[in-house]
Amino acid sequence: MGTTMHAIRQTGSNGPSSLHWGTTERPHPGDGEALVRITHAGVNRADTLQAQGHYPPPPGVTDILGLEGAGLIEDPNNGTRPDGTPWKAGDEVAFLLSGGGYAEYAAVPHGQLLPIPAGFGLEQTASVVEVACTVWSNICMTAHLREGQRILFHGGGGGIGLFGIQLAKALGATVATTAGSAEKLATCQEYGADILINYREEDFAGVLAGCGGVDVILDIIGAKYLARNIDALAPDGHLVIIGMQGGVRAELPINKLLAKRGNISATGLRYRDREDKARVVRETVSNVWPMLEDGRIRCHIDRVMPAEQAAAAHRALLSGEVTGKIVLKLPGAH
Amino acid sequence: MGTTMHAIRQTGSNGPSSLHWGTTERPHPGDGEALVRITHAGVNRADTLQAQGHYPPPPGVTDILGLEGAGLIEDPNNGTRPDGTPWKAGDEVAFLLSGGGYAEYAAVPHGQLLPIPAGFGLEQTASVVEVACTVWSNICMTAHLREGQRILFHGGGGGIGLFGIQLAKALGATVATTAGSAEKLATCQEYGADILINYREEDFAGVLAGCGGVDVILDIIGAKYLARNIDALAPDGHLVIIGMQGGVRAELPINKLLAKRGNISATGLRYRDREDKARVVRETVSNVWPMLEDGRIRCHIDRVMPAEQAAAAHRALLSGEVTGKIVLKLPGAH
Repeated sequence: MGTTMHAIRQTGSNGPSSLHWGTTERPHPGDGEALVRITHAGVNRADTLQAQGHYPPPPGVTDILGLEGAGLIEDPNNGTRPDGTPWKAGDEVAFLLSGGGYAEYAAVPHGQLLPIPAGFGLEQTASVVEVACTVWSNICMTAHLREGQRILFHGGGGGIGLFGIQLAKALGATVATTAGSAEKLATCQEYGADILINYREEDFAGVLAGCGGVDVILDIIGAKYLARNIDALAPDGHLVIIGMQGGVRAELPINKLLAKRGNISATGLRYRDREDKARVVRETVSNVWPMLEDGRIRCHIDRVMPAEQAAAAHRALLSGEVTGKIVLKLPGAH
Repeated sequence: MGTTMHAIRQTGSNGPSSLHWGTTERPHPGDGEALVRITHAGVNRADTLQAQGHYPPPPGVTDILGLEGAGLIEDPNNGTRPDGTPWKAGDEVAFLLSGGGYAEYAAVPHGQLLPIPAGFGLEQTASVVEVACTVWSNICMTAHLREGQRILFHGGGGGIGLFGIQLAKALGATVATTAGSAEKLATCQEYGADILINYREEDFAGVLAGCGGVDVILDIIGAKYLARNIDALAPDGHLVIIGMQGGVRAELPINKLLAKRGNISATGLRYRDREDKARVVRETVSNVWPMLEDGRIRCHIDRVMPAEQAAAAHRALLSGEVTGKIVLKLPGAH
């Protein structure tokens, strides 16, 4: 076993053009970590931010991009599956990372290893780990979405949106979504969205307040939507902000929030500690994996590209032309 | 039984000078409501806002001030105690109201009747209903304060502050509090506060951020403290805003909130529906009443005044000279 590997290296903070395929040192698994040979890595909008010099990895984590993937166990290092049986070398596995997915190998904390859902391949599984953990932790563990409630996903055509729509429908919620084109909204509808709002043509807050408001909002916009999101909330509603594509500071109308007993959480997976991530992964596997296995949730991969073309993948994501996910294929994939 | 009663009537929205002792129609209990003869009514800061024309009662609720009190059951109308035994005419009882406490009689939803804690009198009990339900619902049901965590109460010398300090200590939390005088801070310390901050002399956010931040903040200030409250939060912390003495709109630094995975709730008891209030009352009786009965929480009554002097009571509360609670004594009290 060599001591180097191929990976996407970042040589600046200039976005896609900073990304190059090269070689680097292979990671060594520490205590409580397995070594995984990666075959597929999911691409997330957060990766494009990191390539632009924002959203740095937590202290001590590799600066290689990539928050999720799938592959084969190279060295289990005594890790066990959620059901308690040991992982073995050669087992197919998926994983949630704090960084390091755009590479041939990653050291993965045992609590962030996930089994492959029955009937799923590595490519498909690599495309759902981050969205599944993100959507479950936010709409269920943070906002406690219940059957019969209403939820709004902004950017319904993205990876989180398409996954969230299906998960919320599986939980018995009514789903509203915003997107910027009729085509993306048609895809949202195909995956189950009930209320479709083209944000270029309609004011989502007016539409939703007019029908009683929504109980939960999963927001990736931040400042630009803050006031309107609060207008769109139902009494006791919960706004969960997981992205700030629309700015980082905005005026909060506390009186409106108080009048509807509203809640705001701003959160993310990446900076949680290991124990917290393991808890999210455990709950996601036990609650969401069955929905993948029985077809209640399907993955939507827009395209699969060789990992060497990560820069092109980022350009595609940033252009807004992508619906669902992009997956990078590492050289070791069959 | 006559059809009129004495009560504090409000003849304008000019604050204390709008309040006059007079006569009005006695309330008729509707379905699911008992009629109570009031002996003592608690005075809350919210009452002073209502007397100034802010904070109107929910639709359908009397415009008579007063959110809590104690007295005797006049007509139980089939109501039962939390333990399932029926209320009987003449039973001593306390109650949470959406309005109507500054009066000789009130119609009270059955779910908002509370037993008198063992060892407590009507006067003492009237002083703790609103604060007990407010503090329990916010720091436990909303913010889930746990043993070993840190909590900050703003205005520690007020009714909510002094009660909250004791409740949080009983739950095993470390308690920080702000107040505007050394005398009030000394009272806070006497009731168990660990970290004492005179807001006229120190920046609370700097002090608290310097020791790792607080997990929960119960805030009555609103806009003026929003940014500093977020600075004072620990990772995964929860800011609960229940008052807006310092304004209703302020800039929210979403990026700072997201960096610590912070949560904000703005909430209140008064506009909740009956079912929700009954749930708060039930949890408060089962969790907080034992703390009153075994002395872990003591009530702190600054003064008891005849109900006719409600205007003077409001003036005292607004002057900032009051530590703890004011209770109004109705003519029927012994």
